[in-house]
Amino acid sequence: MNIINGGVTAPKGFSAAGAACGLKKNGKKDLALVCSDDLAVASGVFTTNVVKGHSLQVTMEHIKCGYARAIVINSGNANACVGESGYLDAKEIARLAAELLDCETENVLVGSTGVIGMPLNMTCVKSGVRTAIATLSPDGGHDAMEAIMTTDLVPKEIAVELEIQGEKVTIGGMAKGSGMIHPNMATMIGVITTDANISRSLMDKALKDIVKYTFNRVSVDGDTSVCDMVLMLANGEAENEGIIKEASIEYRDFKQALELVCTALSRMIAQDGEGATKLVEISASGAASEEDAYKIVSSIARSPLVKTAIFGEDANWGRIITAAGYSGAEFDPNLVDIHIGNLMVCRNGAALPFDEAKAKQILKEREIKISINVKKGNFKDRMWTCDFSCDYVKINASYRS
Amino acid sequence: MNIINGGVTAPKGFSAAGAACGLKKNGKKDLALVCSDDLAVASGVFTTNVVKGHSLQVTMEHIKCGYARAIVINSGNANACVGESGYLDAKEIARLAAELLDCETENVLVGSTGVIGMPLNMTCVKSGVRTAIATLSPDGGHDAMEAIMTTDLVPKEIAVELEIQGEKVTIGGMAKGSGMIHPNMATMIGVITTDANISRSLMDKALKDIVKYTFNRVSVDGDTSVCDMVLMLANGEAENEGIIKEASIEYRDFKQALELVCTALSRMIAQDGEGATKLVEISASGAASEEDAYKIVSSIARSPLVKTAIFGEDANWGRIITAAGYSGAEFDPNLVDIHIGNLMVCRNGAALPFDEAKAKQILKEREIKISINVKKGNFKDRMWTCDFSCDYVKINASYRS
Repeated sequence: MNIINGGVTAPKGFSAAGAACGLKKNGKKDLALVCSDDLAVASGVFTTNVVKGHSLQVTMEHIKCGYARAIVINSGNANACVGESGYLDAKEIARLAAELLDCETENVLVGSTGVIGMPLNMTCVKSGVRTAIATLSPDGGHDAMEAIMTTDLVPKEIAVELEIQGEKVTIGGMAKGSGMIHPNMATMIGVITTDANISRSLMDKALKDIVKYTFNRVSVDGDTSVCDMVLMLANGEAENEGIIKEASIEYRDFKQALELVCTALSRMIAQDGEGATKLVEISASGAASEEDAYKIVSSIARSPLVKTAIFGEDANWGRIITAAGYSGAEFDPNLVDIHIGNLMVCRNGAALPFDEAKAKQILKEREIKISINVKKGNFKDRMWTCDFSCDYVKINASYRS
Repeated sequence: MNIINGGVTAPKGFSAAGAACGLKKNGKKDLALVCSDDLAVASGVFTTNVVKGHSLQVTMEHIKCGYARAIVINSGNANACVGESGYLDAKEIARLAAELLDCETENVLVGSTGVIGMPLNMTCVKSGVRTAIATLSPDGGHDAMEAIMTTDLVPKEIAVELEIQGEKVTIGGMAKGSGMIHPNMATMIGVITTDANISRSLMDKALKDIVKYTFNRVSVDGDTSVCDMVLMLANGEAENEGIIKEASIEYRDFKQALELVCTALSRMIAQDGEGATKLVEISASGAASEEDAYKIVSSIARSPLVKTAIFGEDANWGRIITAAGYSGAEFDPNLVDIHIGNLMVCRNGAALPFDEAKAKQILKEREIKISINVKKGNFKDRMWTCDFSCDYVKINASYRS
């Protein structure tokens, strides 16, 4: 398995485009199209927020048929909470793209990300769809990536290739997400493409298994958006015989490659969290149950006090044990060990004298690992987050304007 | 019922002091003592964090006897997570104060607030206890208040007087708390004194009923500290006949006055949240259950995106409905109404055109009310929080240093 250049258009038979249609005030690209030459099996994971964006709702309907040709995503407007017209607009985007691509409306998936509560400017969007389709290119992955960015500073894409059943299979992915990010589903928008020949049910299973421990283990600010989803298309153009059995080498290899793609994109999202200066990986071990392990990492990853301390490069582990303590997980505080990087700062719930200079050195890095062992059971979990800086506040204080 | 000047020493028979014993690096007061002339009935509410500060643990033990003479609270060090010596130190503080005040050790309650994981400097603390006891004064309430402040900018105290059973009864209170504040118990340190003659069981009931909807409805940052508690002493020196029946006018009046004290202190805490520029009151109505109402207000009050938008005076109600949507409460997003102040911004889950200038005017105020009605049932709740500014990050990025 190799990481290669490119993103969603790295697999065979995919093209993409990004157009600037006027939804973003700064004139940047705001309409992305990812298209498979032929009908691809499609799978998706969606936000658990009870409030759901209109475009996302349409995609949840369309994906039920199991096949898709294209994904249209606009940034700059979430198409959420605008009433019935939001649903009709999303349908119209799919209908128009389907007409131009000569496929069924339900084979077009749509997504929107941006400000909530403002009607889509459909004149812009329609012209964007036309431009994107006119400029579709096998090299268009990066343009599509740029067109889904909102407060993202860094484009997020990756591609890997591996051999399955004697054929070269490629998986590519792109994601956007920087704020309003916390697990309870995809927590961002992600598009993954592959030319693998794989059954829809196995792709769906692989995607859902992996999303749980990758995209759903990223927290930037504890907010779960109404538009978040990860969509995956597989068009079979690699012409491998077919991944159809779960208990097979080809499924295991495929899943491993998909996990690499999802892990890389998830870490990119945490690293590019709004205002972030550091990627932080929180690990918990020794938890009494799977739920407790999750509660602990999630509580620490969400704590503004932990995150501001990391921003300040301050080894304030008291805030880490505090966040674990109110997480709802059961454990004996007198058994807890905490490491920052490879430096143990707390043993059996009590302070351990440590070298502040060494702690400072660890915390100066761009990537920080925090581990907590509550020594109650055998369950563990891991989550990615980022530090919390003044810039987070600046970015979000006037997002609408 | 009248609000009067003063705090914990406003009721008859209470004296207090605040000493600077060297725990705070800046030389400010850091040891508070509140003392009743005679043994008082005592009640307390404590953090639900499974990690508990050593001083708090000693107080939880001592308060079981139901009576107390004095409360000693140090700031500058949380006396938490330092191992067995932390418990012994807290015991020693109580023992020393008891010796000097000529009472039983278990009649002294202790509290600590500040940095976690550093052993208390007992030389400082002991000298502070001696100084405080030597300077105890019926006018010392404000000094005690200052001595419990950490990142608080504003002292928080209030007193009310009312007539019960023909006698003037006074209730006084002080509180500290600015960061690491989220409900799941007292979420700060509060001390309430009264000269009322009231049974311990009724005082305990009144305190616990009221704390639930006052101190436990304040969220600054979603973090629940390991040292938080509210302690209450009643010494009976008002010489009212006695509040001993729940179904009585005197209990109703007493509870109303206590509620006013707790409400005022709670709002002061939210208003003085770290870096805060605004007090925000979040109300939910129409929830399907008590739990759902709480989930909604708590989720909105905790959302960094809602709070940064309020800091930026941006009527970004999409973030409000989003936070309600991921709160775990059940409701139909298509029925939700949202008001910012008296301005309706969302009706039946969809944007309502509103006057941005008017919204800006409302958001420029020092106090902002946000109301959400999910129209599913008859339950409601209310929580106080503050906005989220750059200063929160600055304050917390280097708290230990």
